[in-house]
Amino acid sequence: MRKLITLTIAILAALPAALPLRADEGMWLFNKPPLRQLQQRYDFTPSAAWLDKLQKAAVRFNNGGSASFVSPDGLIITNHHVGFDCIQKLSTAERDLVANGYRARTRADELQCPDLEINVLMSIEDVTSRVNATAKPNMSSGDAEAARRAALNAIESESVQKTGLRSDVVTLYQGAQYHLYRYKQYTDVRLVFAPEEGIAFFGGDPDNFEYPRFNLDISFFRAYENGKPVKPDAYLTWNATGAKEGELVLVAGHPGGTDRIDTATHLAFLRDVSYPWVLNYLRRQELMLELYSERGTENARRARDDLLSIENSRKSYQGSLGALQDPALLARKRAEEQKLRQAVTANPELRAQYGEGWDIIDKAIAKSRAIYVERQMLVSGYALAGDLFSKARTLVRYADETQKPNEQRLREFRETNLESVRFGLLAEPPFYADLETAKLADALSFWMESTPNDPLIAQVLNGKSPRHRAVELVQTTELADPRIRKELLEGGKAKIDASKDPMIVVARLVDARSRELRGQYESEVQEPLRQGYAKVANAKFHAGGDDVYPDATFTLRLAFGSVKGYTADARVQPWTTTFAGLYERAGEHKNAAPWALPKSWSDAKPKLSMTTPFNFVATIDSVGGNSGSPVVNRAGEFVGILFDGNLPTLGYSFAYQDVDARSIAVHSAGIIEALRNVYGATELIQELTKTR
Amino acid sequence: MRKLITLTIAILAALPAALPLRADEGMWLFNKPPLRQLQQRYDFTPSAAWLDKLQKAAVRFNNGGSASFVSPDGLIITNHHVGFDCIQKLSTAERDLVANGYRARTRADELQCPDLEINVLMSIEDVTSRVNATAKPNMSSGDAEAARRAALNAIESESVQKTGLRSDVVTLYQGAQYHLYRYKQYTDVRLVFAPEEGIAFFGGDPDNFEYPRFNLDISFFRAYENGKPVKPDAYLTWNATGAKEGELVLVAGHPGGTDRIDTATHLAFLRDVSYPWVLNYLRRQELMLELYSERGTENARRARDDLLSIENSRKSYQGSLGALQDPALLARKRAEEQKLRQAVTANPELRAQYGEGWDIIDKAIAKSRAIYVERQMLVSGYALAGDLFSKARTLVRYADETQKPNEQRLREFRETNLESVRFGLLAEPPFYADLETAKLADALSFWMESTPNDPLIAQVLNGKSPRHRAVELVQTTELADPRIRKELLEGGKAKIDASKDPMIVVARLVDARSRELRGQYESEVQEPLRQGYAKVANAKFHAGGDDVYPDATFTLRLAFGSVKGYTADARVQPWTTTFAGLYERAGEHKNAAPWALPKSWSDAKPKLSMTTPFNFVATIDSVGGNSGSPVVNRAGEFVGILFDGNLPTLGYSFAYQDVDARSIAVHSAGIIEALRNVYGATELIQELTKTR
Repeated sequence: MRKLITLTIAILAALPAALPLRADEGMWLFNKPPLRQLQQRYDFTPSAAWLDKLQKAAVRFNNGGSASFVSPDGLIITNHHVGFDCIQKLSTAERDLVANGYRARTRADELQCPDLEINVLMSIEDVTSRVNATAKPNMSSGDAEAARRAALNAIESESVQKTGLRSDVVTLYQGAQYHLYRYKQYTDVRLVFAPEEGIAFFGGDPDNFEYPRFNLDISFFRAYENGKPVKPDAYLTWNATGAKEGELVLVAGHPGGTDRIDTATHLAFLRDVSYPWVLNYLRRQELMLELYSERGTENARRARDDLLSIENSRKSYQGSLGALQDPALLARKRAEEQKLRQAVTANPELRAQYGEGWDIIDKAIAKSRAIYVERQMLVSGYALAGDLFSKARTLVRYADETQKPNEQRLREFRETNLESVRFGLLAEPPFYADLETAKLADALSFWMESTPNDPLIAQVLNGKSPRHRAVELVQTTELADPRIRKELLEGGKAKIDASKDPMIVVARLVDARSRELRGQYESEVQEPLRQGYAKVANAKFHAGGDDVYPDATFTLRLAFGSVKGYTADARVQPWTTTFAGLYERAGEHKNAAPWALPKSWSDAKPKLSMTTPFNFVATIDSVGGNSGSPVVNRAGEFVGILFDGNLPTLGYSFAYQDVDARSIAVHSAGIIEALRNVYGATELIQELTKTR
Repeated sequence: MRKLITLTIAILAALPAALPLRADEGMWLFNKPPLRQLQQRYDFTPSAAWLDKLQKAAVRFNNGGSASFVSPDGLIITNHHVGFDCIQKLSTAERDLVANGYRARTRADELQCPDLEINVLMSIEDVTSRVNATAKPNMSSGDAEAARRAALNAIESESVQKTGLRSDVVTLYQGAQYHLYRYKQYTDVRLVFAPEEGIAFFGGDPDNFEYPRFNLDISFFRAYENGKPVKPDAYLTWNATGAKEGELVLVAGHPGGTDRIDTATHLAFLRDVSYPWVLNYLRRQELMLELYSERGTENARRARDDLLSIENSRKSYQGSLGALQDPALLARKRAEEQKLRQAVTANPELRAQYGEGWDIIDKAIAKSRAIYVERQMLVSGYALAGDLFSKARTLVRYADETQKPNEQRLREFRETNLESVRFGLLAEPPFYADLETAKLADALSFWMESTPNDPLIAQVLNGKSPRHRAVELVQTTELADPRIRKELLEGGKAKIDASKDPMIVVARLVDARSRELRGQYESEVQEPLRQGYAKVANAKFHAGGDDVYPDATFTLRLAFGSVKGYTADARVQPWTTTFAGLYERAGEHKNAAPWALPKSWSDAKPKLSMTTPFNFVATIDSVGGNSGSPVVNRAGEFVGILFDGNLPTLGYSFAYQDVDARSIAVHSAGIIEALRNVYGATELIQELTKTR
């Protein structure tokens, strides 16, 4: 699955790719599209209008995925696994929309997601010089960080006041450029259609990140405003024939994060510290959730979203770590780095401007390494994982931060983000005390294992074992009740300070050290990395001219490639799979989970055209967060929807290649075939394909 | 499951329990049985003949469990999960004895296990003074370790020459005493009967270490010698009525290891370093094997034994770590320790003799901590896990060690153990290259994660990624072929030194550093711990007199307790479960795995007496390794077979309690009921119950 992996790993670099570009490489900015590359490789030059339409038809699911408008009435297509979070939250033990799917036959049947926000990018503005003007060269890095943060908060505040649009300054090239992104935001999003999980995630974890694939990994939603379907500025025309072998296809989506420009020191840190730590965490989470799930079908239903997401992350991180552990990769990165450094050193002007970059980065990484585990525990919050602590901390900090001027606040409490924070605090998704307890008990135990000498542990445990303390906290806190949260939110600092709610007490207890570590990280790691990588990136610009795109940042990017099969382990993998292949694969596995076909699909078999394309692959550069990205042809028509990459693409975190790495999409013809002959969803087909 | 958990954790302490004894506490030596306790608590005094019969009827399965003779013709009963290793190795894709069970209707149908050795304890001799005489007080700890090792090897060699019996010197009380154990050993062991895994391990991982339980966790084997069934010196009479509520029961088995006497420093090391590391390893193994298994039913079959064993260890270690992370446990241990130290300090003679013990231990633990991860990787061999490396290392070391005099050899290559080593090297259990590759790839990756700066890694990887190197090594080594192993074994050092087999090359490559670390461990950790704990243990003897039993060492022990239910979380758990309960539980889970009943059991339902006891609990002190131990009544008759303990018994690693902790056994009446009315195994029932 190519959903954004939301774990905070220490540092997401955002810097340009190594040179020279490899074939269809690149996750390009919409305000700096790869015109030359498209012209040279494909004899194609998209017009400004073409790009503008694609940009405004593209949708970001803020819980970690991509999507697009596909009708004038606000209909949105995304992956099933991107919509999963909402579909799960709309499900109950009695009405399981994940297992059984859902189809709204009329607008009135469309079901509102409890806590989903989606965004549409309206404009981009380069604000680099204004941001950099605030952080003077002679400032301490702590002062520089504060000044930069103040500038970002202020720019966003002004923009919201001026335009009314959600406004985020995005750090590009890990600090070389700052662009202001303005979004339309929608918080009334409703579920229109979801197939059964059995076909959406056919093959499950074993087939995830593999190819050939046979997944109807789609779901439809509709954006509403003031109780009415949105009329989007742009939407994609559905191409019912779909992608063809060999043709150029383009993708607009939100790749979550890559580390292509990282220095060798930085990559070694990821390989030796960060990724192993994250994988250890993921493995323990996965087993904890599996054990919880094994105890009964309702448990399994409750933990499903968490478990799928953890399994997906585990497989993805493992693949990426595998790429990092290949000595050849680091050797190549080291050679490229050395070449660039030599070029910089050889030129006195470049040396003066950029020469220090690598040493600044090395120092910041050393600091990051030193505080890594404690920071993960307290700042990222792994020590007290779960929904209740997260809400308690947000309440405590909301009270503190909103007393400060906007410029001095922690980034997430900037004036322009408060509405999103309140939306998150007061939303009412389902809450399961037993699952919360299991998570918290494991987290407390993990904390003891990770930093056994932290005196905060004894204070938080209060003489009890991790498990007993978790039971006690979950049983006695009242934060699961949205009315209590509302009271605490509206009561301000006085109410929070006076609260005896045990989870609020715990959140207050760990806050000082947690803020201290965060401060150290922001001023001694993040800010120096921005300064260091700005130098490295500018050195690269100097060497590489236009061929430089920034590392992924979960903001809108344009990628492109050819629809094309490949050969791996001496086996030829075709550009597309078919419906016939689906039934064959289910048969090979005796229709046993996770290859068990839903009844609708067994029943529909005689009606289906077996040669219809189902999934297909292309040489598109994509990573987690790209899930749900529309795949379009030269005419800008929807020909498929990206949902995954094969195992070799897990190395895309660090470098692109098109030898045996491919992005994987659901074919638009396959979607129509399924909607028509499996689901009889004529209203959807009509909305998607009617001539306008 | 109470099978011995075979992971090498850093240090298995072997020292007496804290005082005063708690109720039915204790894993007592057969040469120092708890006569006073049995008399006082149960008005029972077993005679020397009673004890001798139980000792000689008890059997050790050297792959990690316990068992007993139950007929004059060498019939042995153990747990299914203890016999599993052999049952698995006798299975193929076509003939799956694990899934479908096995019943030999005649002697000719009994199937020989490919690599199983079992032992029967014939005598015990205290050799403490001879061992201690060699290690002089003024020796360096390295010299002391070498002298002690030489003494052990020599004592065993003499004993074998004199008696022809397998002879092992056992370190008791972690160094305060040394006893020579002599065993009859059998290597021709044949499978007689195994039920289906579905009933043997009914409830699977979720129910493991839980109660109520409904498991027919039994299997029958027969020992052979010279092609004929063995006539054992003793066997247990079957009591068909079985254990009764409230009665005294006794257990003879082989508890694997406990840490009850560990100092607080030592326990903190287990809590903060060793157990978290082991759990991290177990989790990655479990997921790796799950992923391998998910790819198809034959994969699942191949990995089953490994996976069950890992799951069992993971649950067990997690429970033990949970006990260690309870602040109350360590506080109590600290208080007890302080009390003993004060008593020692207050008495000048005791102070002179034992006062240094704790400091010696602290220093050894600090050293152990410092080399822990590298030692696990290279000495315990986690860096290159798998059967092929293990065999390669054994071949390389066999060639080196057998050139030395017996006294100077590594312990496992002492003259008296060479036959076992050769048996292991030349046995021909099934070998699966794909599973081996998966294990080795994960191990190499784990090594890189664990000690990224070890220069040996680059040498072993030889420029390839862990996965590619693993594929290459498994594909190109010839060690999977037993003929090649035989050639290398018989060719001696010249042949090994000249070998270009890539796995032999790797084994040679890491051997120097591995031996160096092992030497450091033996002289700077193991020997000082023996000396330190000898002092602490003797101080305890002084304080506690006779009430001191040594920590478990996978040697024969006597335990006892009452058949008795308990109350946990306000729920009363009965002393026994019944066949009726089995069918209820399967029904609650809709007969879905792991609660799916085998067909034989669904079919047999009408014939079974539903009130027959199935499993039962008792206040017996037992740990991993006790699996398969016979439970006997005052008459010494077989009334059940121990197979597990409930979750609270996972704290038994550190302390006994009988509040809510219970050992779990299969009831002898339930066994007969199942053999008769599910399996119609009349020949077995006859052999077990005929009057003699």
